[in-house]
Amino acid sequence: MRYAVGIEYIGTAYSGWQALSGRQTVQGELERALGKVADHPLEVVAAGRTDAGVHALQQIAHFDSPARRSDYAWLLGTNTNLPPDISLRWVQPVAENFHARYAAVARRYRYVIHNHRARSALCRERAAWWPQQLDAQAMHEAAQCLLGENDFSAFRDSQCQSPTPMRNLHRLTVQRRGEFVVMDVIGNAFLHHMVRNIAGTLLPVGMGEQPVAWVAQVLASRDRKCAGMTAPAAGLYFVGAEYPAEFALPEPPAPWFPG
Amino acid sequence: MRYAVGIEYIGTAYSGWQALSGRQTVQGELERALGKVADHPLEVVAAGRTDAGVHALQQIAHFDSPARRSDYAWLLGTNTNLPPDISLRWVQPVAENFHARYAAVARRYRYVIHNHRARSALCRERAAWWPQQLDAQAMHEAAQCLLGENDFSAFRDSQCQSPTPMRNLHRLTVQRRGEFVVMDVIGNAFLHHMVRNIAGTLLPVGMGEQPVAWVAQVLASRDRKCAGMTAPAAGLYFVGAEYPAEFALPEPPAPWFPG
Repeated sequence: MRYAVGIEYIGTAYSGWQALSGRQTVQGELERALGKVADHPLEVVAAGRTDAGVHALQQIAHFDSPARRSDYAWLLGTNTNLPPDISLRWVQPVAENFHARYAAVARRYRYVIHNHRARSALCRERAAWWPQQLDAQAMHEAAQCLLGENDFSAFRDSQCQSPTPMRNLHRLTVQRRGEFVVMDVIGNAFLHHMVRNIAGTLLPVGMGEQPVAWVAQVLASRDRKCAGMTAPAAGLYFVGAEYPAEFALPEPPAPWFPG
Repeated sequence: MRYAVGIEYIGTAYSGWQALSGRQTVQGELERALGKVADHPLEVVAAGRTDAGVHALQQIAHFDSPARRSDYAWLLGTNTNLPPDISLRWVQPVAENFHARYAAVARRYRYVIHNHRARSALCRERAAWWPQQLDAQAMHEAAQCLLGENDFSAFRDSQCQSPTPMRNLHRLTVQRRGEFVVMDVIGNAFLHHMVRNIAGTLLPVGMGEQPVAWVAQVLASRDRKCAGMTAPAAGLYFVGAEYPAEFALPEPPAPWFPG
């Protein structure tokens, strides 16, 4: 039997999603907790492998188990065995041909910047802090050139193992919400550090140090050295993944942080 | 010279606001950090003394110092010396007759309930978790009988040291916001545990275990044993205090958590 799960986590204490020997990872904790409920070792596969310090409002993963438990028994039993900074939101049986990574047609991320002159106690490790005033509208306009199928080499980490730098960005919005600047992105898939490199490239535009047209030049350069900084991991949230309707997975929740 | 400060904190690690020998408190940390910038010992007085585990979006306090520093130097220097779960939002000089506690004409609190069947990793220590479905509209209606000048003995902790159980509640709203139920209260002042005891008394109404009219009976009883539980500290936020316009303090920010 194959199961799909929705997972929420604060990534601060983890070396990212992927299980690595000797490291604390979200995948490792999840396999341990689900394995206790299933009563056998198992492997989980995620929609998106987040980096160290990156959070998830709803990561999607699947695992296989012959164990028969109610959805609620999986949920409660696993949450009891997970550390408090990781939680399952739901568990449900899914068709055998479902694959959390390969069946995903889109991924959503949110990048949260606390844009205030004083650092925030509440946003510690949950948002990037940027004290200089940002023009969210300029950032939004600058980012629109990234939409569609593009070679994102300029926004790709040197460690990226993807065979191709082509990705299709469906939507990118930057909005001011009070003291916050929030970037929401949806795309078919993302290169290593791509969302954080886009956020880091929009920052000089937001500060007025680069014109709106600069981002198109960065994209065209296909050169990582032309782009901005890799924005801090603490601001990044995996919000959800989209799958064909046939799998009947719950909709990703409207992201509620920071409102 | 008297200064007013706006303070944000996550109260989880602290034995409340008030300095107590041998305990980690918000007041103690703040006096230590401000004292380093002022270069002399000093005392801070707050608008509302929050309990252990209670947070603040904007606590207000004042202190006196002959030290001459720019507002920005106070802010940056103090934040550098504060632990990461406490931060100053602003510092400004204020009239000598300002008093954070006695000049406050109103205090605002927010109580946040994460109302979802699965516990939330992101809301750990930042909201109360209540898995049973709550009817926020019924809670709102039930609470309206508390408005105005009332004897709040039924909602008062046995440890409360106030000479009178009379308080004036100006406004109380309960709203559903997605997975959250949010209670906002404004009053002239609050008794010990009053906000948490009100929240705990609205819970049985939200679950349908008590009728809307029950809260008026609890109030009329003036008996703490008739009211509900003391809701967990983790859900409570001190949002701000209001002062006469002559003191020209910054407006409390619109609370952004949970959106």
